[in-house]
Amino acid sequence: MTSPSAGLDTTIAAIHPVDADAVAAARARQETLTKPSGSMGALEELGNRLCGIYGACPSPLPEPVAIAVFAGDHGVHAQGVSPWPQEVTVQMVANITGGGAVINALARQVGASVTVVDVGVAAELPARDGFVDRKVAAGTSDLSQGPAMTTDQALAAIDAGRRTAHDLIDAGHRLLVTGDLGIGNTTPSAALVAVFTDSDAADVTGRGAGSDDAMLHRKVAVVRAGISHNGASMERPLEALAAVGGYEHAALTGFLLAAASRRTPVVLDGVIACSSALVARALCRDVTAYLIAGHRSEESGASVAMEALGLVPLIDHRLRLGEGSGAALAVPAVQAAARILREVATFETAGVSESS
Amino acid sequence: MTSPSAGLDTTIAAIHPVDADAVAAARARQETLTKPSGSMGALEELGNRLCGIYGACPSPLPEPVAIAVFAGDHGVHAQGVSPWPQEVTVQMVANITGGGAVINALARQVGASVTVVDVGVAAELPARDGFVDRKVAAGTSDLSQGPAMTTDQALAAIDAGRRTAHDLIDAGHRLLVTGDLGIGNTTPSAALVAVFTDSDAADVTGRGAGSDDAMLHRKVAVVRAGISHNGASMERPLEALAAVGGYEHAALTGFLLAAASRRTPVVLDGVIACSSALVARALCRDVTAYLIAGHRSEESGASVAMEALGLVPLIDHRLRLGEGSGAALAVPAVQAAARILREVATFETAGVSESS
Repeated sequence: MTSPSAGLDTTIAAIHPVDADAVAAARARQETLTKPSGSMGALEELGNRLCGIYGACPSPLPEPVAIAVFAGDHGVHAQGVSPWPQEVTVQMVANITGGGAVINALARQVGASVTVVDVGVAAELPARDGFVDRKVAAGTSDLSQGPAMTTDQALAAIDAGRRTAHDLIDAGHRLLVTGDLGIGNTTPSAALVAVFTDSDAADVTGRGAGSDDAMLHRKVAVVRAGISHNGASMERPLEALAAVGGYEHAALTGFLLAAASRRTPVVLDGVIACSSALVARALCRDVTAYLIAGHRSEESGASVAMEALGLVPLIDHRLRLGEGSGAALAVPAVQAAARILREVATFETAGVSESS
Repeated sequence: MTSPSAGLDTTIAAIHPVDADAVAAARARQETLTKPSGSMGALEELGNRLCGIYGACPSPLPEPVAIAVFAGDHGVHAQGVSPWPQEVTVQMVANITGGGAVINALARQVGASVTVVDVGVAAELPARDGFVDRKVAAGTSDLSQGPAMTTDQALAAIDAGRRTAHDLIDAGHRLLVTGDLGIGNTTPSAALVAVFTDSDAADVTGRGAGSDDAMLHRKVAVVRAGISHNGASMERPLEALAAVGGYEHAALTGFLLAAASRRTPVVLDGVIACSSALVARALCRDVTAYLIAGHRSEESGASVAMEALGLVPLIDHRLRLGEGSGAALAVPAVQAAARILREVATFETAGVSESS
């Protein structure tokens, strides 16, 4: 009998640093292209990094693109940490699979597919195109009262995320985008950021999808209590994930690790993805080289997590929706970064004089 | 015989405020869509504004997209304000019409066409697809020694820009993007920003395409001298444009005004476009409602100009290339803003519960 974490161990063992030779070749190539040195700013650095990730200079174009929206419910919702009723998770799964949500409009804009993966929704959901049932349980337990998940449940959700990444990459996708859906899920996100960056709950807990001052105050107290009651610590990352995370977070952790093991870049959305990335990094330090910060979310925890991860977001439209919306909007910039290295003429071939 | 500015006067008379009813309808519609109120941040405000510009809620999708790259040379190049030889303007016209420049790669990324319009390049250029000859003169005079253009020349370049906008809109384009090309053109841009925002030259003059400290120091002195010798003042906008601007700037001024007169939004690139927008606004205050700031350029003058125009840029990738690159990269966000209002389901039709 294999251990419950055997699949995760295999994935982690397959993650290697990015290709330093390809990055060096990309840096040199940037200097030959018909533009002032460094004039494409963040897109030059990103283009170089994509070469390292794919192990080729120039890199392939990061397309086709798949957005995976991991959905789950949260026992901590009972503590009044969201102004939205829990049934909205189920309703929004139907809205996304029906093509009517914001993420669908943005996916059409950037030419990406959308897949909803149920890893922990508190209701049975019907089979439908664009929907994958990988439910571990019908919602987490209330993290303020005890562990949200058992370690085995967290591992099962990690496995669901790993399998999702492998399936999408096997289907030919070369760029993955994180999405998430789950009423109440900014509370476990804040808890994970607090634990994995050693921050105070007040500094990493935000208003989510519309908390007022009283609710925000309550969220901070709930986050603090959950960490303390469960003794969550970054020294034991799997246990901390199980104690104060959610099924989406566990699945995203596996999704990020599996993508890195397949040398496939992932664009992170907001605080749910960034908090999951902290867990993934605690399990395997090299994973961050494969991650691209899509946007600066309005949630303070996302910015704290990105700074800890050493990632700088591509865009800032003051978004606070989730679903993968900020990451989807960053996709054209990621593709443009690769395209510049692939398509721009050199000074020599274009017959353009260089600067003094 | 009509006056030299008759066409410009007609254009200005055709510019009206955006449709306030359509903006109000868009604001109300945002509240019915399946997302937390305000959660799409800057894209909600932009989507509402697009409804006002097009006069319809929801607005049409801002596509197809045309990028117009106005090209010219600058007599002030003789003062040593650029590390690049002047011949690079001609060489880059060939590179862009050949599809090898950064703007071409970005245009392919966002599905836009690219047209180079010669309004003042200091060489005869061959006919070619994607190239339009509207040359007024073979480069400006040195603005540090006297006026860069006569008022009639500036008016002729404004007319070239106006005609370009009308042609592109007549061809069916619903979103225009500014581009520019001209070795030395950040110097007249800085001069225009200084004049039209009443700023000190040192605060609005940047390194352009790679000036070192000594060159930057010289640029500031040249900008200051040009403004002072010519007595350029925002009270006489056409004369100021002629005195310290360039043919690209004059053409862009006409381009922006004509687009506004046709109720067509324009995405502004960096300091060349933003300085031209200041001239356009001095001629017709209502023009700014039709302008979208594409990106925060590394040139300080661009930020000063955007603030004066009341525009907040969509992206910031630390770009300093020109050609329209930053504006092109902002196109997907502009289209996404319109798409959300067009395509996202309402709470009622999707059967999603609302928040408390």
